[in-house]
Amino acid sequence: MLPRRRPRALGAALLLLLLLLLLGFFLFGGDPGCEGRERVGEPGGPGCLPCPLTPRIPSDGRLRGAAALDGDPLGGQGGHNRSDCGPQLPPKCELLHVAIVCAGHNSSREVITLVKSMLFYRKNPLHLHLVTDAVARNILETLFHTWMVPAVRVSFYDAEELKPQVSWIPNKHYSGLYGLMKLVLPGALPPDLARVIVLDTDVTFASDIAELWALFAHFSDKQVIGLVENQSDWYLGNLWKNHRPWPALGRGFNTGVILLQLDRLRRAGWEQMWRLTASRELLTLPATSLADQDIFNAVIKEHPGLVQPLPCIWNVQLSDHTLAERCYSEASDLKVIHWNSPKKLRVKNKHVEFFRNFYLTFMEYDGNLLRRELFGCPGQPLPGAEQRALAQLDEEDACFEFRQQQLTVHRVHITFLPHEPPPPRPHDVTLVTQLSMDRLQMLEALCRHWPGPMSLALYLTDAEAQQFLRFVEASPVLSARQDVAYHVVYREGPLYPINQLRNVALAQALTPYVFLSDVDFLPAYSLYDSLRASIEQLGLGSRRKAALVVPAFETLHYRFSFPTSKAELLALLDAGALHTFRYHEWPRGHAPTDYTRWREAEAPYRVQWAADYEPYVVVPRDCPRYDPRFVGFGWNKVAHIVELDAQEYELLVLPEAFTIHLPHAPSLDISRFRSSPTYRDCLQALKDEFHQDLSRHYGAAALKYLTALQQPGSPA
Amino acid sequence: MLPRRRPRALGAALLLLLLLLLLGFFLFGGDPGCEGRERVGEPGGPGCLPCPLTPRIPSDGRLRGAAALDGDPLGGQGGHNRSDCGPQLPPKCELLHVAIVCAGHNSSREVITLVKSMLFYRKNPLHLHLVTDAVARNILETLFHTWMVPAVRVSFYDAEELKPQVSWIPNKHYSGLYGLMKLVLPGALPPDLARVIVLDTDVTFASDIAELWALFAHFSDKQVIGLVENQSDWYLGNLWKNHRPWPALGRGFNTGVILLQLDRLRRAGWEQMWRLTASRELLTLPATSLADQDIFNAVIKEHPGLVQPLPCIWNVQLSDHTLAERCYSEASDLKVIHWNSPKKLRVKNKHVEFFRNFYLTFMEYDGNLLRRELFGCPGQPLPGAEQRALAQLDEEDACFEFRQQQLTVHRVHITFLPHEPPPPRPHDVTLVTQLSMDRLQMLEALCRHWPGPMSLALYLTDAEAQQFLRFVEASPVLSARQDVAYHVVYREGPLYPINQLRNVALAQALTPYVFLSDVDFLPAYSLYDSLRASIEQLGLGSRRKAALVVPAFETLHYRFSFPTSKAELLALLDAGALHTFRYHEWPRGHAPTDYTRWREAEAPYRVQWAADYEPYVVVPRDCPRYDPRFVGFGWNKVAHIVELDAQEYELLVLPEAFTIHLPHAPSLDISRFRSSPTYRDCLQALKDEFHQDLSRHYGAAALKYLTALQQPGSPA
Repeated sequence: MLPRRRPRALGAALLLLLLLLLLGFFLFGGDPGCEGRERVGEPGGPGCLPCPLTPRIPSDGRLRGAAALDGDPLGGQGGHNRSDCGPQLPPKCELLHVAIVCAGHNSSREVITLVKSMLFYRKNPLHLHLVTDAVARNILETLFHTWMVPAVRVSFYDAEELKPQVSWIPNKHYSGLYGLMKLVLPGALPPDLARVIVLDTDVTFASDIAELWALFAHFSDKQVIGLVENQSDWYLGNLWKNHRPWPALGRGFNTGVILLQLDRLRRAGWEQMWRLTASRELLTLPATSLADQDIFNAVIKEHPGLVQPLPCIWNVQLSDHTLAERCYSEASDLKVIHWNSPKKLRVKNKHVEFFRNFYLTFMEYDGNLLRRELFGCPGQPLPGAEQRALAQLDEEDACFEFRQQQLTVHRVHITFLPHEPPPPRPHDVTLVTQLSMDRLQMLEALCRHWPGPMSLALYLTDAEAQQFLRFVEASPVLSARQDVAYHVVYREGPLYPINQLRNVALAQALTPYVFLSDVDFLPAYSLYDSLRASIEQLGLGSRRKAALVVPAFETLHYRFSFPTSKAELLALLDAGALHTFRYHEWPRGHAPTDYTRWREAEAPYRVQWAADYEPYVVVPRDCPRYDPRFVGFGWNKVAHIVELDAQEYELLVLPEAFTIHLPHAPSLDISRFRSSPTYRDCLQALKDEFHQDLSRHYGAAALKYLTALQQPGSPA
Repeated sequence: MLPRRRPRALGAALLLLLLLLLLGFFLFGGDPGCEGRERVGEPGGPGCLPCPLTPRIPSDGRLRGAAALDGDPLGGQGGHNRSDCGPQLPPKCELLHVAIVCAGHNSSREVITLVKSMLFYRKNPLHLHLVTDAVARNILETLFHTWMVPAVRVSFYDAEELKPQVSWIPNKHYSGLYGLMKLVLPGALPPDLARVIVLDTDVTFASDIAELWALFAHFSDKQVIGLVENQSDWYLGNLWKNHRPWPALGRGFNTGVILLQLDRLRRAGWEQMWRLTASRELLTLPATSLADQDIFNAVIKEHPGLVQPLPCIWNVQLSDHTLAERCYSEASDLKVIHWNSPKKLRVKNKHVEFFRNFYLTFMEYDGNLLRRELFGCPGQPLPGAEQRALAQLDEEDACFEFRQQQLTVHRVHITFLPHEPPPPRPHDVTLVTQLSMDRLQMLEALCRHWPGPMSLALYLTDAEAQQFLRFVEASPVLSARQDVAYHVVYREGPLYPINQLRNVALAQALTPYVFLSDVDFLPAYSLYDSLRASIEQLGLGSRRKAALVVPAFETLHYRFSFPTSKAELLALLDAGALHTFRYHEWPRGHAPTDYTRWREAEAPYRVQWAADYEPYVVVPRDCPRYDPRFVGFGWNKVAHIVELDAQEYELLVLPEAFTIHLPHAPSLDISRFRSSPTYRDCLQALKDEFHQDLSRHYGAAALKYLTALQQPGSPA
């Protein structure tokens, strides 16, 4: 019996064992999502919790990953049999933290492409931690404030305060001191912040950052830094003769994309750790070549247990000696592209066109479209006053477009290009104006005629802003000028928000006085100097509240020799080669300037306001703002002069000053004004509301403007 | 013994059972990717192979999915705990098939936004099967031919041929007969095509179409059609009183996105199946209200086993009565948006802004950026001649920009707006010209001055093309004209490809004669009529090979009263209000027209070619093309006139004809020409090459052009 009994029990036991094994397989190896990868010989990939993330670093610290590019265990999602068993993404509304070091005008412009790509794919709320210098902070604060992207928080940290912590390290990298600041983030960021993704400004996302965040889940208790292998032989030290790189595990790691476990780093005494390593290496090495990256690698070489290698697709490096092709030609998917060559988009690479297209996609992407709410996530900001007003507008209202345009908050990127503020001079004047793409060709001439500071608002799409950038770079005249500030106001809506643009340019003027001009005018060569002289003589601003009138003329020829003196101007006027501005179409606009008197005048003379007067004036910077309700064509300058007069600015015509209007095709807006009765009706409505506000503000004093309005006359 | 033995065996057996259950759980319910979903009460979702896709339809055919939107089993990826255990994606380079029915100008324009969104996220080669009418085929063939997107094949199927198969079905839906054609796809598409994704033109992708394709894997052997539940109560028949919808399972299904198992459908006798059902229903119902969708639903109601329900996120329907919010507010991710309201983007919906942004993203997306190769996929097309030449260009060459611009193949969208070809008339003339955004305001005036057909090439970005569309829609003058054909040439490169644009407009002119004009010119009101008269009198084309010269003048005032006769014109000329064109800057360009003779002329007179002559001419449609090497400013028209003269066209000046140039600011290109010596050098190089080709072509006869060139003179 017994012999007959045992086999049964044994059989049951064996079967049990088998089942337990099976069970184990399904529990720990059986995730179907990983089959694909297993078939192509990868033990696993990110996100498939049951499959271990490779390559693991053996206790001896020799990194199998060094051979990664060759064997492609770092290929991650790679392999020809795609499996999309992605990582366990963080919960729908979990807040993800991102840290970026950004300084100066150019980085502030470049980082926006990164931010756009990140926002395009993101589905989680984001908190951006920006370590910036004063310039970048000024630019980015304005930008994010006017961008109004839902579920995005931005905090700024002063790079100046961090400099002392890294300034002792000699660094040869083009990023300078800022290139070292990632080292001090654990100390600089809020102590309660446990995890952060750290990005270089020159990376572009091609997927949802939540997938990257999810890789934190794979960190062992010891691992504190997630990095992608460096995709060049730099750290192997064989790039050229006598090339002596800093120590690294195999190819080392690239720090363009870092997952930082801040809490653990702090506990592990990160600061002492890297300082110790850096100081020791600097005994034998003259300086860092790749800034923070050299030091991160040196530390990791000493403490291999700290690093969690990430799949190569999370930092596809397009450096000059890149081996990245081994990564992306295998992978079915790219997650992050890294332009880590000083040549940036001009880097030579047989696939560079492909990557450029990705970059251009987001560089030219209309950032307004990223104002997307996250459905079902709490704590979305309440709509602002404008948004509420916008929501209440009646789409059927004939003037809907006007109302909408007035309420639109435009994204503003101040000092889009490098700019040096003018030295403080008591009587200095900034030329203030605005333009769109079709007037770019005026800028060079304007620079020749106005040697002083300028503050220009440009109304552009994101794509046009890049054309503008190339235009300036291609122009010796423009790129030579550091005292011209370009402020990009991003296009939105059908009507040209002329007064909002003027106000942006005006707000950014840094001299005590401003010359409020239009871009189709070229001032007399001497105007900049003569204005400063007049301001001093007349004691404008301090002793008297006045607006200096610069008489306006026009030529009807594209090419003509610009008069170098009042005498020459008068000669051309008599010859019929020049006219007083809008003499044919709209004399009322400038009649009060009294050109006949100006011919003879040798001293400034005072003139009285009259209906529809719209001279070009020089005023103190703190002058009243333009009324933003006037969008498109009509009455936008007239209203401002009314405001000046109501605030009792004297109108003083300057005897030697003049500015000349060049011919151009009628703008789209003026064409619409002429062709559309509705357009004219809406403008009339705006004028009426303007006068109501005026009376409300100035009471009886405003009566004269209303009565003046009764006289016949169409808007200028 | 026995009693003691049984419990053991029993225990083993019980344990076994338990383990089998556990095993079963991990096999069919235990995929970690599904936990999230299970926690929010969903039995599962797509892609997690082990979890069954819900809702399954019970054998009784009652669809639990009818309650889906309420209970959200169709929520798919939904739930607050996001799991991204997506479907097993198809192999990296697997070819995916997509079928779309598209007819007419507007659908041909709208479908491109769908295609762009699909191409943006796709990572697989695609084969598009387009069922089109003649108009759509003409447009889309040109577009895809010039778009040159790697790894995209396009096949066309003639909708006319399919009409008889559906024309017997009365249909009230706005899509008309075309709305029914999805029913006949199994027969119309190649018999060896086993699977296809069928899309409406009004859907937008927000993810990789491969994820949708992957859902085929979930079809049971019986299932042949994958559909998303209809996200409105339409088929419940409770929307309004006496609303009698076609029969459907619960809420029924929406056919904007369909997965078709073609092979099985053919085997199952699909054609008989749907015809039978449709005929029977039409005994009691007057017509289909929602075209093919009514019939698909009626068939499914009869054969519930045929349908594989898909997660709601694969067809988020923004119809007027949409319940879609129940889907997208739960889901962490949207895959496909469907604008299935006749109001399209104007549909009222509290989140419509969000969805519009998605749509606008791709509507305004620069399609050139989609010319992205798929790494590691075989059978990519070899680069064309232009691409090879482009690759060989030297980026350091001073004229690189010129060379590059000449070789650029621009995406061309012919007849961007609805257009009616003019009736064939033997002496009819089409005005041919080109423009970019900054000249839009000329179009209305042009329409007033030229009552005949026009073929206009517009050089625009994708975003500008949409502004242009709105501009035309807002203009009564323009939207009234069906005989103006607008051909969009998409911008690429820094220089204005003026002659390539002219050639596009010229190639699309449908009358026997063309008036080759520039957009800043307004022709005499009488010109269209007088030209046709002259052509008839002179027997142009048939009897003689001639180019009729239309004398050109210019005004320097924005606003002036256009002369209604030659007499008036001469008066204005004498008054100095008008000038002969470029009289001040560049008389050589039109001197040979001999304005003095023209004053007196009462009959056409012949003139001789001279260097730099560039009159505006009327020629037969088959005239020589413009030389595309001339990009930007300079010599582009001059070269064409040389070509005409070399081919022995008589130059006949018309006595009554005239055209007048309006003032505008100098173009960016003319400014660059004036300011940049390199620009002038490059133009000179082009001219030299042009003359070399000329001699090669015409031998000694071309000598006169070379010698003429020796005379001083700068390009016009």
